[in-house]
Amino acid sequence: MEPGPPGSSGPVEPGPCLSGQRGADHAASASLQSAAGTEPGRHSLAVAAVLPAGGCGERMGVPTPKQFCPILERPLISYTLQALERVCWIKDIVVAVTGENMEVMKSIIQKYQHKRISLVEAGVTRHRSIFSGLKALAEDQLNSKLSKPEVVIIHDAVRPLVEEDVLLKVVTAAKEHGAAGAIRPLVSTVISPSADGCLDHSLERARHRASEMPQAFLFDVIYEAYQQCTDYDLEFGTECLQLALKYCRTKAKLVEGSPDLWKVTYKRDLYAAESIIKEIISQEICVVMDSKEDNKHVGHLLEEVLKSELNVHFLDFKLVPPSQKMENLMQIKEFSKKVKERNILLYGLLISYPQDEQKLQESLRQGAIIIASLVKERNSGLIGQLLIA
Amino acid sequence: MEPGPPGSSGPVEPGPCLSGQRGADHAASASLQSAAGTEPGRHSLAVAAVLPAGGCGERMGVPTPKQFCPILERPLISYTLQALERVCWIKDIVVAVTGENMEVMKSIIQKYQHKRISLVEAGVTRHRSIFSGLKALAEDQLNSKLSKPEVVIIHDAVRPLVEEDVLLKVVTAAKEHGAAGAIRPLVSTVISPSADGCLDHSLERARHRASEMPQAFLFDVIYEAYQQCTDYDLEFGTECLQLALKYCRTKAKLVEGSPDLWKVTYKRDLYAAESIIKEIISQEICVVMDSKEDNKHVGHLLEEVLKSELNVHFLDFKLVPPSQKMENLMQIKEFSKKVKERNILLYGLLISYPQDEQKLQESLRQGAIIIASLVKERNSGLIGQLLIA
Repeated sequence: MEPGPPGSSGPVEPGPCLSGQRGADHAASASLQSAAGTEPGRHSLAVAAVLPAGGCGERMGVPTPKQFCPILERPLISYTLQALERVCWIKDIVVAVTGENMEVMKSIIQKYQHKRISLVEAGVTRHRSIFSGLKALAEDQLNSKLSKPEVVIIHDAVRPLVEEDVLLKVVTAAKEHGAAGAIRPLVSTVISPSADGCLDHSLERARHRASEMPQAFLFDVIYEAYQQCTDYDLEFGTECLQLALKYCRTKAKLVEGSPDLWKVTYKRDLYAAESIIKEIISQEICVVMDSKEDNKHVGHLLEEVLKSELNVHFLDFKLVPPSQKMENLMQIKEFSKKVKERNILLYGLLISYPQDEQKLQESLRQGAIIIASLVKERNSGLIGQLLIA
Repeated sequence: MEPGPPGSSGPVEPGPCLSGQRGADHAASASLQSAAGTEPGRHSLAVAAVLPAGGCGERMGVPTPKQFCPILERPLISYTLQALERVCWIKDIVVAVTGENMEVMKSIIQKYQHKRISLVEAGVTRHRSIFSGLKALAEDQLNSKLSKPEVVIIHDAVRPLVEEDVLLKVVTAAKEHGAAGAIRPLVSTVISPSADGCLDHSLERARHRASEMPQAFLFDVIYEAYQQCTDYDLEFGTECLQLALKYCRTKAKLVEGSPDLWKVTYKRDLYAAESIIKEIISQEICVVMDSKEDNKHVGHLLEEVLKSELNVHFLDFKLVPPSQKMENLMQIKEFSKKVKERNILLYGLLISYPQDEQKLQESLRQGAIIIASLVKERNSGLIGQLLIA
């Protein structure tokens, strides 16, 4: 259930869109300018992003590479691209995909109308893919429509919930320190095994951190590091911050990230991402009423019960009798199929309206439970059903 | 939707029960005996488990400690206890909870009929809670109904999906080596920050592992280690394997664990656990048919479509006309509320039965989609609804 009446004429993307986050960007950006003391766009700092997306997802246990796995019918990578596109001061987004997935990627860009994206061919390892992306941004490339940025963000295709906040922090820190990366506390203790598969020693958890994404670098620093690094680094390395340290003596600034930065690695992470995205989408719902009785009374009662059941931040409650009559069951069904294409899930709900105040309350409570269930689960298999409270 | 008709008389637990796993235990156990070469129960190896459950879950961002957070209305810790109880050779399970949560824990044990559980009061840190559990198992305790085990398993209350397989492996390895623990590959690179919040160095990911649970120890080894260790260890330590190494020079054997061993730490982990538990539960469904037309024909057609849509491993398909007539909508609703108490989610589905073969197929496909949605989402807010295909 997306905001706005089904007949509205604005462009609606075919898949779910995190409109709640998008709407909050402006305010967040304004507060960040004062908080961080700088906003890259103001000083025309040229910022680009590189997204390695060449992985094959062997840890997921599914044949589709994880960046292309669908969440609510939309590929994971499309959420990540959306999160980066929302940030107006990122000028170019370079995505490295394997030749095999180039067409899939192009069709995703077209379907979800992604902007500012350039595609390059991924290498066989993560570092090689990032290097490909950096090469495309370097000035010495012929026929390139891209221009060399001052700062480059490196992010993962499989971290869809990145916020402007942390992107701004790593970019600002990279401008000052040459390199910066998001970190998180360790969830498990890290140990070092000996050759015979026994414990050699364990690391003190408080003295270590998990290195996450996004990271950001002065372009010249990280490009220099990749040009100097060895084949061994490109094959077996995992950490860009380490390359900047080793080859350019640039000590990265570490920035505390939020739990939402985690990487979708296993199947359970897809489940978690789906639930979080559902939760974000479902904070806005639209109730269209059609009643022969006293509209306002039932409407406001339902609103009250809904608010206590749903705990929604925003409720776009509309007492609009639908222009199309939908009493007929088949009509609701047909109509729900049509609006599904516009990413709206439509269900019918019949609330009985007994005179007895207590029975009315019970029936409203039932209605609110049903609505809460539908909103939470976002079950597209049940669209067009007439449910009864 | 649990296996068995609603009227069956066997005891059904009030919350969801991972019966799919439970059913598979016998076969798994049999194959493990040959795979691992030993089965602790055979040699009457006394094994107990200690579960620290005194955490307050500050990382979850919710007021309820995470071990008590509900998943499908049942507290997380109850799934973990169920997983340990399924393993018949674990004689005692000692759970350390804070005084504040003692009554909650008692009521969970009663409600879900947990067996072989002893409660002790948790300490203020994880290590102190484990030490309390070990003390309760030590022979020198007066008035204890517990007896000292040869091997003790230490597990987390917030790792509900532990399998007999890995428990057997750590116990077997602990008997041989004195200590053993499950490990997993690192998901993120681990780094060490310097005092000024910059990168000091990053660790080679391939040379390190995440230390997970379960772990197992010869009781005398780990009890000795806890008795010798310092207040600093008890306050700030996180790793039992390290204590065994430091105070008893026991090098733990490291055992590769499955991805399911992950610890429920953040809110997203609760979402993931819920989805996985739904998936396990929903592999068995029961369809009760009531039709005036040719039962068998529609029944078998539906079964075919269901199998292709649902990808279920087992389908308990019953052509049983229900003894109670449920045509009446209110009767379905009332009946669904009643069976919900027995952990059965009941929905009505009306499949139209057109003569035209193509239309019939379409209507069966619709029915299968609705059933698949209901099974996947396990939405208790919609029980008793009559859905129409």
